[in-house]
Order: sequence, then structure tokens, then C-alpha cells
Amino acid sequence: MTVSSSAGGHGRCLGNGAMALRWLSVRSLGQRGADHWGSLCRVMARGLCEALIYHKHGDPLRVVRLETLKPPQLGDTDVRAQMLAAPINPSDINMVQGTYPILPNLPAVGGNEGVGQVLEVGSRVTNLKPGDWVIPSDAGLGTWRTETVDNMNRFSKVPNNLPLLCAATLGVNTCTAYRMLYDFETLKPGDSVIQNAANSGVGQAAIQIAKAMGLTTINIVRDRPDLQQLTDRMKSMGAHYVITEEALRKPDMEELFKKVPRPHLALNGVGGKSATEILRHLVKGGTMVTYGGMAKQPITVPASALIFKNVKIQGFWMTRWKQDHGHDLVQEMISVLCDFIQAGKLRAPVCTKVKFQDYTTALKAATTPFISSKQILIM
Amino acid sequence: MTVSSSAGGHGRCLGNGAMALRWLSVRSLGQRGADHWGSLCRVMARGLCEALIYHKHGDPLRVVRLETLKPPQLGDTDVRAQMLAAPINPSDINMVQGTYPILPNLPAVGGNEGVGQVLEVGSRVTNLKPGDWVIPSDAGLGTWRTETVDNMNRFSKVPNNLPLLCAATLGVNTCTAYRMLYDFETLKPGDSVIQNAANSGVGQAAIQIAKAMGLTTINIVRDRPDLQQLTDRMKSMGAHYVITEEALRKPDMEELFKKVPRPHLALNGVGGKSATEILRHLVKGGTMVTYGGMAKQPITVPASALIFKNVKIQGFWMTRWKQDHGHDLVQEMISVLCDFIQAGKLRAPVCTKVKFQDYTTALKAATTPFISSKQILIM
Repeated sequence: MTVSSSAGGHGRCLGNGAMALRWLSVRSLGQRGADHWGSLCRVMARGLCEALIYHKHGDPLRVVRLETLKPPQLGDTDVRAQMLAAPINPSDINMVQGTYPILPNLPAVGGNEGVGQVLEVGSRVTNLKPGDWVIPSDAGLGTWRTETVDNMNRFSKVPNNLPLLCAATLGVNTCTAYRMLYDFETLKPGDSVIQNAANSGVGQAAIQIAKAMGLTTINIVRDRPDLQQLTDRMKSMGAHYVITEEALRKPDMEELFKKVPRPHLALNGVGGKSATEILRHLVKGGTMVTYGGMAKQPITVPASALIFKNVKIQGFWMTRWKQDHGHDLVQEMISVLCDFIQAGKLRAPVCTKVKFQDYTTALKAATTPFISSKQILIM
Repeated sequence: MTVSSSAGGHGRCLGNGAMALRWLSVRSLGQRGADHWGSLCRVMARGLCEALIYHKHGDPLRVVRLETLKPPQLGDTDVRAQMLAAPINPSDINMVQGTYPILPNLPAVGGNEGVGQVLEVGSRVTNLKPGDWVIPSDAGLGTWRTETVDNMNRFSKVPNNLPLLCAATLGVNTCTAYRMLYDFETLKPGDSVIQNAANSGVGQAAIQIAKAMGLTTINIVRDRPDLQQLTDRMKSMGAHYVITEEALRKPDMEELFKKVPRPHLALNGVGGKSATEILRHLVKGGTMVTYGGMAKQPITVPASALIFKNVKIQGFWMTRWKQDHGHDLVQEMISVLCDFIQAGKLRAPVCTKVKFQDYTTALKAATTPFISSKQILIM
């Protein structure tokens, strides 16, 4: 074990969109200490916490490591929370790789989503108290850690009787699905929505929220060995149609649109040919919203679709929405989604729980194609 | 000369977007009768008119021919007008070729824009009188003819002291430029707009209307032998910057944006690489509006531009706008644009006047690349 230290405050999302994730002192525990829990207890007893930190961008399996750090002093408007669970999202991976459009100052703690429990609040904090569950209000908190201290406005409260995995995955993907379904087209019960990457975190949330809205979903997935199992699982969530990318390109799709109205909204998390295909099925005047580009290929749009079919091509980024709308509206959205969860209309995406100290296993799974399960670090 | 006849009414734009352009009787005059004017006088004396008609889709030079036809009886709500001038627009050519998304029933009279003078009105027509100048309110009138009879709602009135070429080119391209500048982004004086196909009919109108709005225009044109002459001409219209497609791709463009704010609006009449390039220079949150696809290549949009830069990709089609907004709002728009013309803020695009009977010369020029002049048939 080695000890290093660096001065600095705690995480802040800078106005220009860049993020600073700094800490007071760092102690490397090595990647998978055999006596981890004993070590963690000793660490916390000394007012330290553990975090998954990267000092340079690159392959997450190479650059992310478990270190100890000393959270900053609690300020008047700060909240100290113990992290309970935090997912590994594709955007977290891209941030570690250095390919995401906003990047933290290095070294940085990974993770942007998760749920924690308040341990202590500053003297001027009135909206939160010890025992409350909180999720980050914006990106950049660095949720892959055992404990965090930050300004009260960087947290939104959620009921602490939510299923843990629902709470841990609520703040980014679920919110993205919700906003895309409500903000771009005025949809009414009976309307349809088409989406690719339908098995992603966003996709699974979109299926359930759309169902709660009375919409029919047409869900596009990549062909795979366990397709029937995946289809059954998605239908159990409320998916009406599950169709492979290959089937989407065939003329048979026209049969579907004898039964289902053409979609007003297409949700695109893939790009490339997949985006062009879902775009092709939109009703005149419909909108395709892009929130991801997993295929790493641009979107190709025929001029005629824009001019004569009047389709609109837009993008959505939760980070910007949160920056533009501020803490109160974020909290309002979170509350609405918690109501969905408590009404049994929204459950967590398919997840695999992984102990925090087994993070390399989780990172490996999160970067493996066709692992249809979100990796959640449990602290 | 041969005589043929076919029963039918006069032109109507059908509800489903298809167009019926029918007539009562047709007399072929051959393509360029030497005794054309004498013939025309005899034709008109017999209550007939002449029209440029195509019986099948194909190369305009092969399928368009001059024929005589008998306009229908004047109904109570109809207007009879003598056509004075009508341009040959790219969309007219595409319609003859059969590549436009809405096509008339065949045989059809070519042309969708132009100006005429009212000769006679039906007993229930109160908004128009003989002597008034009119332009089509929507597509499908078939303006390449000497005389037309149609419902009063298919015409909008313009002052009959407008310059002839302004009136003849007002209804499609000028309106398109106007709507695109006003309907997609809220622009304020000092803002900038970037457009490709800047020398097109739409482009020339956009330069002038943008100037009247206090906007700076960045105008992209293809490189050509007479570039300096073209640049001078565009600057005399109010263009601030005239830049070739090649220069647009160079890093020097960044120098421009030290002097000029990045555009909120990009007008795309080309598609392909040109569209990607103008899109690249948009400010965050800006909009690219596509109204044409002269390069016959789709538009390629990086997912990151949509997600992280929040650019919006939309289309505009004047025909749909007119269908959606109806006669009164079309007339209102036309009146605003006539005010621009009368205030000296808007002149016709660079035009070449061609006698109606020399239509083959005009069609040939209209289908030749780099002929920087709109062909206008003068009846």
C-alpha cells in the first residue's frame, strides 16, 4: 500500500460543462484486497471512504482502481451520504475512456448515477435529513464510492422504501426515457413509438413508461442466441412488439402497420443503418430523437424525408436538460417517476448486482457486447 | 397539326396531395411554329389558349410540347387570367421528370409559379376584378400556359405595379426563404445565417430578406469560372460573405467566426457533404432546415451533434405550408413580401426572359449546370 495526497475541494459540475472531481487524500488499496471488508471498516472508522478512481483516460479495466480518499469537511449547505448502489452505464465507460464530450479533471471518481443514504447534513440544509435516500441531481458526482459529501442542490430526494435497484438507476436512463416520451411529440393513448436499443437501460424504461401512457411500443433489438428469452422478458415489461434489426429491414414490416398506427416518435440509441430504418417507419411529421450512438456511425437522412415527409431529427441529453431546468424541476421529475415505481408501473432494468470491491468483474461485463444486464455496484 | 381532345375539368390540387391537371381540348402546334404569334392570335380569338404539356414523364426537352387547349367555362367562383410570366424552377423540372413526390395526373401542364392578369371573374368573386395581378396560391396550377381558369381561392392578389419578374418569382422560392427565416429560429439583428445553394432562387431571396431583418449571411456556392462576378452580384444583393464549398471545409473558417457569431440557422438546399459542412458551423442548439437536395445525396448527421450540440434537423416544403395554412394566411404572407418589394428591399433573382414559344431554349438552360440565371417564360 502506498499513500498519496492532493489538496482540493469536492466534486462540482462547472458552468462550462467540464467537471472537477477532486479530493483531499488518496490511499490506494490495490484492486481487490483480500481483507477488503476489514480494511473498509478501518477506513471508515478513520473518516475515509473508498472510491473507484482513474488518473488517466483509457481502458477502464486498466485505469480504474480502488483508492481511499478523505471526504471534505461538511459545509453549511452540504450533505454527507453513504452510497448504497451505483450502476455502470455506457456513458460512464466513455467518460473513463475519454471519449465523452464532457470530461472530469483528472484524477476523477467514476460513475454518474446511483443512490445513497444521508448520514449528516450541514446547518443550513432543511430539505434533507439523516436517513433520507438521495440520488444525484446532475452528472459528475462520481458515484462509484462508498461515501460522498456535496452541496445539497446536487442531490434529489427519493422515498427510502423504493427498491434499491430502481433508485440506483432512476437518475439518468429512466429520466431520459421519460423526457423523450413527453417532450418531443404530443402522444395520446393508442399512438405508437418505435425504438432501437430497446434492451438498453433507456429502452427498458421507455417500454414501461410508454405502456403507462397507453402507447404501443415497437422495440428493435439485435439478433442474438437468447432472442426468445429476451423477447419474453421485454414483453413481461410491457413491450408490444420485439423485432430484430434484420426483420425491420424486410417488407413484412408493412403488415405490422396494418395493425398498429405508424409511430409519431422514434427513439434512437444506435445511429447508422438502424436509425435510418426506424426513421423510415415514422408517420409524416414525426420526430426521431437521438440519445445515443452505440453503432458509432452517423445518422443518414434522405432530404425527401425532411422536406416531403416533414420528419424532425433532434437529440436529447439528460445532462443538458438538468443544467437548463435546474434542481427544482429535476426534483419534480424524480418525484413523478418515484410515483410510477410505487404504483408498480416501473421497475429497474435487468441488473446484475456486483459487490463494490468486485468492480473489475462489473467493468468487464459492462464492456462486453450482448451482456443484457446492467452492472450495479453494491457498496 | 393534329387535333385531339379529352374531356375533363380544370386543375385542382387534390386533398391527398396528388394533382389533377385536366383540360377540355388539346391542339398540338408542334414545338416551335414559325407563325406562332399569328397562330396564337387566332387561337385566343377562338377562346383557346396555349400550354406546355407533357403526356408522360421524362426528359423535359423530349416530353414537353406546346399544345392548344380550351379552358373550361367560367364558374361563379372562378377567375380567368392571362398568364404574363412563369419561371422554370428545379421542382418543375423534377415534376416533368417524374421524380417529384407529388405528381399530376397526365397529361399535365408544367409550371407551378408565375403571374397573371385577371381577364374575367365569376359572379360570386368579390376579392378580384379584371386587371388585377394574381399569382398561384398553391402548387399545381400549371402556369406554363397563356391563359388559366380556376377557383378564386387558387389565386393570391399582388399589386399590379410590381416589377414583372418579382411577381413571377414570388410565390415559391421567395416565400420559402421568408418562412425559413421566420419560422424555425427566433433571430435578432446581428445574428447570422449560413446557407448553401446561395445562388439559387431561394438563396437570393434569403440574402435579401435576411438583410432586411438585420442578419449577417454566410453564403456558400460551388466554385466556378465566374466566381468573382457571382460574388459581386450576390454582395450587391446584400450578401455579407460568399464562400466556396472548398473554402468552407478549410480551417480558415474559424477566422470568420472570430468576427461573426456562429449561425443559429442553416438553410440547406444541397444535401450530402455540403449539408454536413454547414451543420458543423451552427451554434449549439441551432437548426438546419432542408428545402432541397440538389446533390442527390442524403444528409449525414453525427449523433454527437444531435445529443451534445443539440442541433435540430428539419425540413421545409412550401406546398405543405400552403396546404396547412390556407388561402388567407398565404395571401397575408404574399402581401408582406410585396411590401418588401415595394420598399426596395427585395428584387427578383437573376433571370433570363425567354419568349413562351422559345420554351425549348429555356428548358435547356434550366437543366444546364452553372447557368446562374432563372429562366422565365414570357407569355
